[in-house]
Amino acid sequence: MRIGILGGGQLARMMSLAAYPLNIQTRIYEPAPESCAAQVTERIQGEYDDFRALFQFIQGCDSVTYEFENVPIETARWINERVPVYPPPEALRVSQDRIIEKTFLQDLGIRTPAFRAINSRADYDRAIQELGFPFVLKTTRFGYDGKGQMVVKSLEDQEKAWILLGGRPLILEQFVPFDSEYSIIAVRDRSLAIRTYDLIENQHREGILRRSVCPSSASETQKRLARKAAAAVMEKLDYVGVLTIEFFGIGEDLWANEMAPRVHNSGHWTINAAVTSQFENHMRAVAGLDLGSTELLKPVRMLNCIGRMPDRQKICADGWTKYHDYGKSSRAGRKVGHLTLMHSDSIAADSLEELFWKEMADSD
Amino acid sequence: MRIGILGGGQLARMMSLAAYPLNIQTRIYEPAPESCAAQVTERIQGEYDDFRALFQFIQGCDSVTYEFENVPIETARWINERVPVYPPPEALRVSQDRIIEKTFLQDLGIRTPAFRAINSRADYDRAIQELGFPFVLKTTRFGYDGKGQMVVKSLEDQEKAWILLGGRPLILEQFVPFDSEYSIIAVRDRSLAIRTYDLIENQHREGILRRSVCPSSASETQKRLARKAAAAVMEKLDYVGVLTIEFFGIGEDLWANEMAPRVHNSGHWTINAAVTSQFENHMRAVAGLDLGSTELLKPVRMLNCIGRMPDRQKICADGWTKYHDYGKSSRAGRKVGHLTLMHSDSIAADSLEELFWKEMADSD
Repeated sequence: MRIGILGGGQLARMMSLAAYPLNIQTRIYEPAPESCAAQVTERIQGEYDDFRALFQFIQGCDSVTYEFENVPIETARWINERVPVYPPPEALRVSQDRIIEKTFLQDLGIRTPAFRAINSRADYDRAIQELGFPFVLKTTRFGYDGKGQMVVKSLEDQEKAWILLGGRPLILEQFVPFDSEYSIIAVRDRSLAIRTYDLIENQHREGILRRSVCPSSASETQKRLARKAAAAVMEKLDYVGVLTIEFFGIGEDLWANEMAPRVHNSGHWTINAAVTSQFENHMRAVAGLDLGSTELLKPVRMLNCIGRMPDRQKICADGWTKYHDYGKSSRAGRKVGHLTLMHSDSIAADSLEELFWKEMADSD
Repeated sequence: MRIGILGGGQLARMMSLAAYPLNIQTRIYEPAPESCAAQVTERIQGEYDDFRALFQFIQGCDSVTYEFENVPIETARWINERVPVYPPPEALRVSQDRIIEKTFLQDLGIRTPAFRAINSRADYDRAIQELGFPFVLKTTRFGYDGKGQMVVKSLEDQEKAWILLGGRPLILEQFVPFDSEYSIIAVRDRSLAIRTYDLIENQHREGILRRSVCPSSASETQKRLARKAAAAVMEKLDYVGVLTIEFFGIGEDLWANEMAPRVHNSGHWTINAAVTSQFENHMRAVAGLDLGSTELLKPVRMLNCIGRMPDRQKICADGWTKYHDYGKSSRAGRKVGHLTLMHSDSIAADSLEELFWKEMADSD
């Protein structure tokens, strides 16, 4: 069996590594010459509108999935007419546009921050009057890792933000003074069975995920709300594969921030600390297999390596840290790897973390 | 960093998959056209005495290891003069010959079954007089998975065994009426630190490992004896890498049966149920990194798939079984994969096992 993956970054790489033991071959499709997934599996290089290369890519594939939500919807639909695409292209359409996404979530009864679509200066001024400061101004499309967005706290920022972002379709969102950030990773197979991982607690800095912890500090009510939200989204979309929803925790409440129709950075610890990783479960779902247990084997922390990897020798020294280097070249702001801390002793884990942040201090 | 691996079977495949997250590239060397490791990493095809191909193989390798103990000692030594070979070639020399191996173990104070070297019919008759029935007659070299050996219980068997095996260098071993079989997997890094996994309990049939369980039923005394034996062997051999010793459990005692200077089939569960797998720890040792924790995350069983894989859909259905298909073609008696049972509930694990044995009943 062969599964095609659109995108050749670390998510495709980790999917491919998870697929081998199941005797599932992967093939990636990636426009860029550099591809860390191509180090571990076969790849076809081509642009997303190169239908000749895409045709070659899908030959011999039993199904196709994707590692990122900005795959052009036309490409996904074109493939889906020939080979099944999971998650369904409709999930791409919904998650590619923040207005459509938040409207979709609200229609399912999932609470989100208040927002306004901004297509003109008049829209902008009216939205500010209605929602007030502070707010977040974002491009509706193609944002990731904090790119294409700005927090606006004052009249002065308001002009800066407009100069920076104005002229494109925007969304103005109420700024939510959250207590914590969470994500749920859920997976649904072709027979519609759903499994969810324990709710994850996340910390971002400069819009980039830095640290995830599982289990989280969330209440049972919040965990239930998260599972319910994931199930509602998956049912509505006839979903197959891994879905991630990110939330703000506000007191006992939980507001959805965004969703990603794919495996997610906040779930990388599942490789080492869950019975079945998110990557394997995604492959199982896409391949038509039953899902694996999402049981947590051990409390765990995940640290992102941004810009460059920390010294491997130092990080591996205490023996409890799983080192995941994606084989990418160093570049400021780039996710090049992650660590999973498997320590039984939280003081030892703290001290490894301290070492890590010191190591990384001057890299981003 | 690149590590070369002599041999391109499932052990090299699992080493290669374990190496990727550490950003260690592997390259395999395998004479046979079919190689399941070549599906996941680069390979050079050549015979073990093809020094031109071997020269090409070692270019760019920082160190070289092997996945099986029958690598010609001359090949290992030739490479070791150019690129460090771990475990040291001396470990190959000792484990390639059952007489040398058992003598070596006894010299370290490790108890083994009584044995005699058999180089003539006269040796054979004398050994039988001294050790009596039952005994096991084995070729001193190139035996694996029960090949090249025969249990001899009577005068009649005695002649059959001689007809079958005579004329080659043989070892006659006292047959040990053991209560159980165990193996220890230990690893030593370049700074001489040692870590050991929990003692494993094994079941063989027709000389082939069928089932491993961890933790085992062994006593603390037996576990201590096993760790002590592994440490003694590794110290004596200036060992770096994973070492396995197989034992017979006889009452409270523990007798060594054989050693393998490599990762071992009885330790495949470490991929899913230990903080660090035997494959990763072997790669760490060979690469000059510190070792990872060998902590057991969950009690576990490993079942070997001999001849062919069981139905993937059925085996994956309950979600607690890790399916490891080596990507090899089916053939009677061949190890083509393994399952790791991660069930929390032993009754559920029993029922998966029952399903498995039923599935496999007509395959070998």
